[in-house]
Amino acid sequence: MTGMLTIAGLGPGDEALITPEVSLALAEATDVFGYGPYVARIKTREGLVLHASDNRQELQRATEALRLAAEGRRVVVVSSGDPGVFAMASAVFEALEAAPQWHDIPIRVLPGVTAMLAAAARAGAPLGHDFCAINLSDNLKPWPVIERRLRLAAEADFAIALYNPRSASRPEGFERALDILKDAGCGDRITIFAHAVTTSEERIEALPLREARPEMADMRTLVIVGNSSTRSIGRWIYAPRRAS
Amino acid sequence: MTGMLTIAGLGPGDEALITPEVSLALAEATDVFGYGPYVARIKTREGLVLHASDNRQELQRATEALRLAAEGRRVVVVSSGDPGVFAMASAVFEALEAAPQWHDIPIRVLPGVTAMLAAAARAGAPLGHDFCAINLSDNLKPWPVIERRLRLAAEADFAIALYNPRSASRPEGFERALDILKDAGCGDRITIFAHAVTTSEERIEALPLREARPEMADMRTLVIVGNSSTRSIGRWIYAPRRAS
Repeated sequence: MTGMLTIAGLGPGDEALITPEVSLALAEATDVFGYGPYVARIKTREGLVLHASDNRQELQRATEALRLAAEGRRVVVVSSGDPGVFAMASAVFEALEAAPQWHDIPIRVLPGVTAMLAAAARAGAPLGHDFCAINLSDNLKPWPVIERRLRLAAEADFAIALYNPRSASRPEGFERALDILKDAGCGDRITIFAHAVTTSEERIEALPLREARPEMADMRTLVIVGNSSTRSIGRWIYAPRRAS
Repeated sequence: MTGMLTIAGLGPGDEALITPEVSLALAEATDVFGYGPYVARIKTREGLVLHASDNRQELQRATEALRLAAEGRRVVVVSSGDPGVFAMASAVFEALEAAPQWHDIPIRVLPGVTAMLAAAARAGAPLGHDFCAINLSDNLKPWPVIERRLRLAAEADFAIALYNPRSASRPEGFERALDILKDAGCGDRITIFAHAVTTSEERIEALPLREARPEMADMRTLVIVGNSSTRSIGRWIYAPRRAS
């Protein structure tokens, strides 16, 4: 059997958001690797080995997945959402770069519905105009880089999707991010807190940024800060196509 | 029959990237509205009326879709990719805002795999670190706004996804965008041209920004300009998780 490594996105939570391409890859897999709660979404079956690991184990997980693929297994590494957005795809390529002996392993990346798209859909269309996505939890990124990006994103009048706003290792980061954005003149901007979007625990809140409190977010929350033209109409929030 | 309006994303082209949620909505629709080439992707069947319209007709299309939903039809408005990213969702909410009599129509937005995610997956993981998405074709956006956003995005060291790089109405825009990015110090950045991604005409090219030529892009191309740390390993291109 020829081994291969597939890096697949499971979407934000609802089974109906998993693409048929990803479902097929999972049906053909011999091994699935991923963070525990994501691996728990995979149906067990005869002949499939599930390898769940901890949140901070991305590089080890990627290396182990490559090793099994090199041995001839059909390995799928799963991420929530899209695997290319703050998820496992970069970790796999980092591991691959460090291991020349594995450079010939067939690899494919299967995209998915990333959290900001699902959150935006629930809220309306807050990403209908130019936007950016910033990962607040990344412990590999120094805080001054995050601060500079937030300021420039505000100045560019992007809608801003904030991934992993509140991590266990950096609980104060999101409060600082809110302060920076207020300081950058974004106090009036409509801000959406999308918690556990498309799951049974989904909760969507929207309010002006200046009224946002850090404890409104946790690791399962995706935050979207609207641009200066973002408006609401009834329960819907959207960015007009026209620039401000 | 109670009417409703669904705004759905068909993904970038491959049928295997249409979510089951969207497939179900299409199976239950009485009417599908959209730009001609996207409506052409919908299977015809008894009881389904297809309403194809021209590219520049977004607001009229949205208004007509709302009108039929108000009359009790199960209407689906389709976009390529994700409907919330430079697509029909914002146009529908604009039309809704102008028509208070329709504010009670049940509306839902169903997300999809937007072009930059599919393009990134084919290339590797160029959106694995912070990034932004800028629409170059939007004829509702003055050029100085685009120019300012490009400069700030370069300064923030975002990877930059450029949607609709080369439009019929603004053929010179992409050349100017490339010049601005070169001028902003991005000449060395790895730049990916993803043409007709996930279709039979897919073509992926990557090269340093300074070697990119405007004619490499057309309206079916998604361009991703890497950040300053983006690297390649064999045929794969990825943004390390670590900040530069």
